[in-house]
Amino acid sequence: MTELSFLSLIRDDLERVEALLREHYPGQHEAIGLAIEHLVDGGGKRLRPALVLLSANMCGADLDQAIYAAAAVEMLHTATLVHDDLIDGALMRRGTETLNSHWSPNATVLTGDYVFAYAAYLASRADNVRLMQRFSETLMVICNGEIQQMFDGRDGQPTHQEYELRIYAKTASLIAMSTEAGAILAGVGQTMVEALRAFGEQLGLAFQVVDDVLDYVADEERLGKPVGSDLRQGLITLPLLFFLEEEAGPNQAGVRQALAGTLSQDLVCEAVQAVAESPAIERALEVARGHANQAKQALSEFPDSPYKTAFLELVDFTVRRRF
Amino acid sequence: MTELSFLSLIRDDLERVEALLREHYPGQHEAIGLAIEHLVDGGGKRLRPALVLLSANMCGADLDQAIYAAAAVEMLHTATLVHDDLIDGALMRRGTETLNSHWSPNATVLTGDYVFAYAAYLASRADNVRLMQRFSETLMVICNGEIQQMFDGRDGQPTHQEYELRIYAKTASLIAMSTEAGAILAGVGQTMVEALRAFGEQLGLAFQVVDDVLDYVADEERLGKPVGSDLRQGLITLPLLFFLEEEAGPNQAGVRQALAGTLSQDLVCEAVQAVAESPAIERALEVARGHANQAKQALSEFPDSPYKTAFLELVDFTVRRRF
Repeated sequence: MTELSFLSLIRDDLERVEALLREHYPGQHEAIGLAIEHLVDGGGKRLRPALVLLSANMCGADLDQAIYAAAAVEMLHTATLVHDDLIDGALMRRGTETLNSHWSPNATVLTGDYVFAYAAYLASRADNVRLMQRFSETLMVICNGEIQQMFDGRDGQPTHQEYELRIYAKTASLIAMSTEAGAILAGVGQTMVEALRAFGEQLGLAFQVVDDVLDYVADEERLGKPVGSDLRQGLITLPLLFFLEEEAGPNQAGVRQALAGTLSQDLVCEAVQAVAESPAIERALEVARGHANQAKQALSEFPDSPYKTAFLELVDFTVRRRF
Repeated sequence: MTELSFLSLIRDDLERVEALLREHYPGQHEAIGLAIEHLVDGGGKRLRPALVLLSANMCGADLDQAIYAAAAVEMLHTATLVHDDLIDGALMRRGTETLNSHWSPNATVLTGDYVFAYAAYLASRADNVRLMQRFSETLMVICNGEIQQMFDGRDGQPTHQEYELRIYAKTASLIAMSTEAGAILAGVGQTMVEALRAFGEQLGLAFQVVDDVLDYVADEERLGKPVGSDLRQGLITLPLLFFLEEEAGPNQAGVRQALAGTLSQDLVCEAVQAVAESPAIERALEVARGHANQAKQALSEFPDSPYKTAFLELVDFTVRRRF
């Protein structure tokens, strides 16, 4: 995201967030400090804190409070990944070893719990009860989505609506909370809070659809993990959904076997490639662009400002990115 | 705890808490609802909500807010037990099957996370940022204590101070937060907040020492689990600490072998009995009574009231109870 010019608007604030993420809480066991540092170092693009800061600036919130909200959102995101990676048995994330790759399941569960608590603590430092409520509700939505996916099975073919609900829970809910956070902290009217929330929701949906596309077509080195991991895990995302609806013949059969986990590695790679080279990719990207347009639409009532321009630029980046 | 006369003071409020604990959050997966019901049904004496309500009444807090704080504290306690039982591989708690006894580890991790989030949501409904901060810090202390215990090993012989720090993290921190909560919600002065916190801390320490004694001497049916489970898990609690410091000869050797996990079941039972029949039990109870007296002392500046009387009665009950 360093290529994005708007980052200069919030660079200093983002640095303060970064410092907060690396602070040690008094009395914290050394192992937790090391784990959090490792997680923060391996962290991604800091998209969520940037969204909180842009929203806070656009709405005129107190930036000292916004810094805490931004750090809290990133820490919450980090916490969910700790348990996700444990559950998926993932050994790498974004090119960095996961916690569960070298810690016991028990230590990973407890450390994830600690990181949840630390995220809630950071959120409480933003000094706004309504934000705390949205914060905890968002975590409920995220966990609920994962439990739904676990109990209802990964290998059933979801409807498009079920897919959207799943990616809302997984990704868009926290992104919506991030864009809403600044408006809540600023205490602006409900219409503006809801517009920023709608913006984040659509941005988040676009973001996750593109992520799901990249899982088929990305450059592995930039992605930080092998392509095709969703298919290997039996997870049907939007590109595959279009593929299964539209393709027929031997390609479709191969992909169904890959989903069922009955293919050799080589044949799975072929199945991934079949999806990657199919029109399903463009169909999925079209859906992502639709969400992106709805995101932009949600901001239409806001007056022009450098922050609004930054948000719009970020939407374009989200559907354009290749990593 | 039904034998306690003070409960009539807060019976209606406790019923409202009970109803809150059983509410279903909109959109929540059916499995989560069932899991939470099971956990709430199997719940214990509702000590923590009772403490919040007594504290709120004594300090004159808004009871609508206090109800949420009371439910939040119980839900947080429940959430910590879900992951604890998973980590310990415990199949029963208080005579009820644990979640992990019939769910996969992954489902148990996610459900525990959901219950944490739900606890935070309930706490946010109490509408007080300072309470949220204490709430999240308390969860950090609890997780930190467990991680400490995990990384530093269970089988080393702790000092008395290390033992106290461990039971503070495990039990007294949340009980202190419960007694402090009503004072925070009432917005009384810092001296009163701290006095109620000190009261809860000492009460919590007394409570856990007695729990650790009961693990050796309780009636198994009332305890809801076999006696001696700490020893079987290699966990050195206060009775055992006194025993190891004071006993010599064959009894001590047997207990050390039981700790190391190298004894047959029969011989472990003998080791448990050796501790149960030793003066170490009375020594530990003396420590519990010391904490109980300090708890009472912490309330000395508060004017007489039915709530203060109830707190004092509860302290006596804590060290007197046999289950």
